[in-house]
Amino acid sequence: MARKTGSHAEITGPRIRAEASRLFARHGFAAVSMRQIAAAVGVQAGALYLYTPDKEALLFDLLKGHMDELLAAWAQEPRGTDPLAALERFVRFHIRFNLERAEAVFLSYMELRNLSEPNFAVIEGLRKRYETELEEILKAGQAAGAVSVPDTKLATMAIIAMLTGVNTWYREGGRLSRATVETIYWDMVRKAVGA
Amino acid sequence: MARKTGSHAEITGPRIRAEASRLFARHGFAAVSMRQIAAAVGVQAGALYLYTPDKEALLFDLLKGHMDELLAAWAQEPRGTDPLAALERFVRFHIRFNLERAEAVFLSYMELRNLSEPNFAVIEGLRKRYETELEEILKAGQAAGAVSVPDTKLATMAIIAMLTGVNTWYREGGRLSRATVETIYWDMVRKAVGA
Repeated sequence: MARKTGSHAEITGPRIRAEASRLFARHGFAAVSMRQIAAAVGVQAGALYLYTPDKEALLFDLLKGHMDELLAAWAQEPRGTDPLAALERFVRFHIRFNLERAEAVFLSYMELRNLSEPNFAVIEGLRKRYETELEEILKAGQAAGAVSVPDTKLATMAIIAMLTGVNTWYREGGRLSRATVETIYWDMVRKAVGA
Repeated sequence: MARKTGSHAEITGPRIRAEASRLFARHGFAAVSMRQIAAAVGVQAGALYLYTPDKEALLFDLLKGHMDELLAAWAQEPRGTDPLAALERFVRFHIRFNLERAEAVFLSYMELRNLSEPNFAVIEGLRKRYETELEEILKAGQAAGAVSVPDTKLATMAIIAMLTGVNTWYREGGRLSRATVETIYWDMVRKAVGA
């Protein structure tokens, strides 16, 4: 029995998250009911409440999962001492990671306002950690004389906004490959930071 | 009587739009009912339907009004023949205009998915017109040898995303004035386009 419960949770958890993510992205968090999510998963609404206390907890789960994955993936990128090489890695990593998770990125921006205050603070903290990763690269570059920006904080926000913006217009199979887009954005970022 | 109806429409229209905008921004389009909007305005729900056929038409009204205002305001900016001066004007204009209309900008990004297909196409067309204004400046700069970007289309999208991003972090009374933010972003944009 314990085995069965375990497998059930393992199979259902990812499916619940996938269906909730898809429904939230398509209709918006407010317009989706727990009943709809349960129906999409193919379980009774009651079974959903065994997995998550409420809809907001499910949203938080999705948004936190995305940020945890982002930070873990970035931590696995090769390190180095050259700040410009690190900046290029960050640019290519951010574009690639976000294009591969368009739905999660969309949700993270759209539904942040539907989190409770404490949950919002957790996500904000994780975002801040990610932003700090980039800002540390810029500060190291500035210290080494390889980068010249008037304000590393603003440069951080400007670069992240610019890179995340790719998700709003990039279409698979369009005129440019992902690799070309990465290279063009790296050219603009490099110049923007005076390198 | 005609006079009275006229004044009524004039007074109520802007108030309906203001309350709808505030409620949509706070709770999300899907979570707000026509009844709630009517209550916020201080009229019966029936009176609201004299003004707008439905909630989606009201949202379209808000999003289109914002884009019309943006294009009209940009058209009133001084023209000139120097592409770099034009680019600087665009950067400062975009930051200033968007910071002054934070709620409308937020709505324009958040609720686009709730428009019907034809209404969505209208807003997309207006956005495209605005993007073309910037791309024409970059093309003129490229032709004059004042600007060097690998792709004017991508540079357009990158610059607009970067500038619009200011709305996500800027806080009035924070460490930097709007004018300082404009100047710092202009520095980054100018360098990004190789000028």
